Amino acid sequence: MAPIEPRVLKGFRDFLPAQELIRRGMIEKIEKSFRSFGFVPIDTPALEYAEILLGKGGGETEKQVYRFTDQGGRDVALRFDLTVPFARFMAEHRRELVLPFKRYHIAKVWRGENAQRGRYREFTQCDFDIVGSDSAAADFEILLMMSTTLGLLCGEASGVTIRLNHRGLFNRFLESLGLKDKSVQILRQVDKLGKIGRDGVRNLLEDIAGAGAGEKILGYISLGEGDFEKTLEKLTAAAGEGEDTRRLEELKGYMKDTGTGGSFVLDPSITRGLDYYTGVVYESFLDELPGIGSVCSGGRYDRLTELYSKEPLWGVGSSIGLDRLQAALEELSARSGGCSDGSGGGFSGRIRCCDAAVAALETGNSGKAQALAEAFRRRGIRCEVFLEPKKLTQQFILAEKKGIPWVIIPEGETLTLRNIAARENTEGLDVEAAAALAAGG
Amino acid sequence: MAPIEPRVLKGFRDFLPAQELIRRGMIEKIEKSFRSFGFVPIDTPALEYAEILLGKGGGETEKQVYRFTDQGGRDVALRFDLTVPFARFMAEHRRELVLPFKRYHIAKVWRGENAQRGRYREFTQCDFDIVGSDSAAADFEILLMMSTTLGLLCGEASGVTIRLNHRGLFNRFLESLGLKDKSVQILRQVDKLGKIGRDGVRNLLEDIAGAGAGEKILGYISLGEGDFEKTLEKLTAAAGEGEDTRRLEELKGYMKDTGTGGSFVLDPSITRGLDYYTGVVYESFLDELPGIGSVCSGGRYDRLTELYSKEPLWGVGSSIGLDRLQAALEELSARSGGCSDGSGGGFSGRIRCCDAAVAALETGNSGKAQALAEAFRRRGIRCEVFLEPKKLTQQFILAEKKGIPWVIIPEGETLTLRNIAARENTEGLDVEAAAALAAGG
Repeated sequence: MAPIEPRVLKGFRDFLPAQELIRRGMIEKIEKSFRSFGFVPIDTPALEYAEILLGKGGGETEKQVYRFTDQGGRDVALRFDLTVPFARFMAEHRRELVLPFKRYHIAKVWRGENAQRGRYREFTQCDFDIVGSDSAAADFEILLMMSTTLGLLCGEASGVTIRLNHRGLFNRFLESLGLKDKSVQILRQVDKLGKIGRDGVRNLLEDIAGAGAGEKILGYISLGEGDFEKTLEKLTAAAGEGEDTRRLEELKGYMKDTGTGGSFVLDPSITRGLDYYTGVVYESFLDELPGIGSVCSGGRYDRLTELYSKEPLWGVGSSIGLDRLQAALEELSARSGGCSDGSGGGFSGRIRCCDAAVAALETGNSGKAQALAEAFRRRGIRCEVFLEPKKLTQQFILAEKKGIPWVIIPEGETLTLRNIAARENTEGLDVEAAAALAAGG
Repeated sequence: MAPIEPRVLKGFRDFLPAQELIRRGMIEKIEKSFRSFGFVPIDTPALEYAEILLGKGGGETEKQVYRFTDQGGRDVALRFDLTVPFARFMAEHRRELVLPFKRYHIAKVWRGENAQRGRYREFTQCDFDIVGSDSAAADFEILLMMSTTLGLLCGEASGVTIRLNHRGLFNRFLESLGLKDKSVQILRQVDKLGKIGRDGVRNLLEDIAGAGAGEKILGYISLGEGDFEKTLEKLTAAAGEGEDTRRLEELKGYMKDTGTGGSFVLDPSITRGLDYYTGVVYESFLDELPGIGSVCSGGRYDRLTELYSKEPLWGVGSSIGLDRLQAALEELSARSGGCSDGSGGGFSGRIRCCDAAVAALETGNSGKAQALAEAFRRRGIRCEVFLEPKKLTQQFILAEKKGIPWVIIPEGETLTLRNIAARENTEGLDVEAAAALAAGG
């Protein structure tokens, strides 16, 4: 029988260890950061009733969804984001939870869209939300978590700027132009600014709102130059004072109190295309690679559970696009000639997966080798056991290929430790001394 | 519009924070253990070509698989285990990897089977395998990892016994009865011993192998009483010496060298139903709850990639069924009256998700509260900020509900720390002193 060609579906990927180690390292940092704010994890099924996930049926979304009939004749679909399952989750479990509920959810989602650079049909989202509070304090906590967590992930590689806006402010401005009833359509077009440019958006806006309106709207959304305070003044002048400007004032105060103002820009061109946002909205950009688009976006939505429950529930949250962020950090690391020093800090560099290996000296010796390795593992040294007895030089090459910095060679009652990078041996060690040496380098 | 009833599909589950924290804690322990042996993580797509996953088409498996036609007309399926995707992965990537390749993969799989107690349609497997070595050293490393990792997970709750056998030995015994060509069928029936009992299996065996053969086979597989060495002697007497008995001898030596013999039992009734095993096979049972079945099973398979490549590749590996193990540990914890002391050690007890919370004293104060919380976070204290100003007693109740042991109350230039369990305040602290107190208790 001819072999089946081994391949994955278009838009899907295998993660080899070098990439998966980076990925898991990122997730670990994200989780640690979320947990430090007292957020707790949840999980929901990958597969749900299509009715639950698609609700009223959003045109564009529906085309992208993996939807099928299961063995029991049920109309089911793979989740395409983590927000809709979370809305269902809150409607189902709110009585079991303490509000305000602060949760995160890191999981894969699937969309059968066209696969482009940085866009996959299977990708990971890291959502974090506060449900049950309509306060500026909740809005700010999400913003602070974005800035803190992205800062941890990007480190020295890039600064992060979070551009925020308030939907209400823009809607009031449209109202002043007599365009309130067209706000959803207009918001969707403005959201395309980054993709199709100013002229393209002007044309689309004039189709909807009439000649002249396009330029006025574009003029308004260009007010976001200069600092937060000045921009807020200009926007308030354009749309008048309201609940939204007061909310933005309050956020500005919190930024000042926490000394985080430098990370935030008030930008009236940020609208987010999705209809469900009702308050603040935001996107995040890497200062060194703005062209890759937003790596973490979100906002306030006040009708989260309305599809599944008559009880209203406020929410505010954001989502890190892990795949796009990983691609961006890899690109930045490649640009700066990221080094392969095994320190685990770089992106193009190999992350050290193992600290030491016990050499295989003879067949039948593996029990003793494992007992020795266990003594190192107990001391916090990740220690592999080589399985096939070979010349020591070959085992050193194997260690080098695998990125293992130390090889442990039992010699009678003592140990010799080989430093692979320096090509040096240290002889006559006991386990304690060898573990200390391996832990240090 | 009437709300859509919020519900999940039968056999699928939401994980609320209390369960998800336990689950993630288990995965963290498992990963740490695997990594300490120098194993590295990989990931593969949830969705693959049906042809890749189903290959020759296994009757029972095929019925359980979620299979459908995607938007591009492709015949696709959700993975039903992590072994088949791994075989495809190895055939596709072996040139990019250093052999022997030691990898783990912790991920969800989907099977549309009947949902029973402890059986779900979506569940998590934790696979670990060594590919590219046919040595007893590799067999033993997997066994040692099983015993070490399950030991870490079960802790005081239960001992773990790993029951192992060798497929070759049983096949040679069948050969001596003239039943070699029926070995696959016979192995499948013997695997049902735990489910349908001795009489049921005897009847099935006699249908296949003729009158009398059933009793002989059952006699052979009952030889596994007493210690490893004695059982191996009896089995060798029944089937003669061979490569398989020598392999078991070697493993016995390794157990002795590592002092782990007490965890392993040689049990000729362990056969594993799956056809692809060719050498050692094993299952693991909790001493305190054997009825729940095997929580970690596996074995040696020597034709891993044969569907996708003409190059043969040896492998040996095992898989922890996370859901079943979690259910078992929860049951054991409930039996022993697991306490809710917040220490994170118990299963029925609540895992502490957050160490402290800053009280909300007045509206508009949230920036200062976040700045204070950041000072605690920097010192390793997970610190939530309460968002809604309420009476302090109500905030203490909120902390208690959420399992947060300390509440931080700013009082002018100093801090008061409320111990929720003891209902005691300590006043006049600076951040350093308050963080030290919160870290201690």
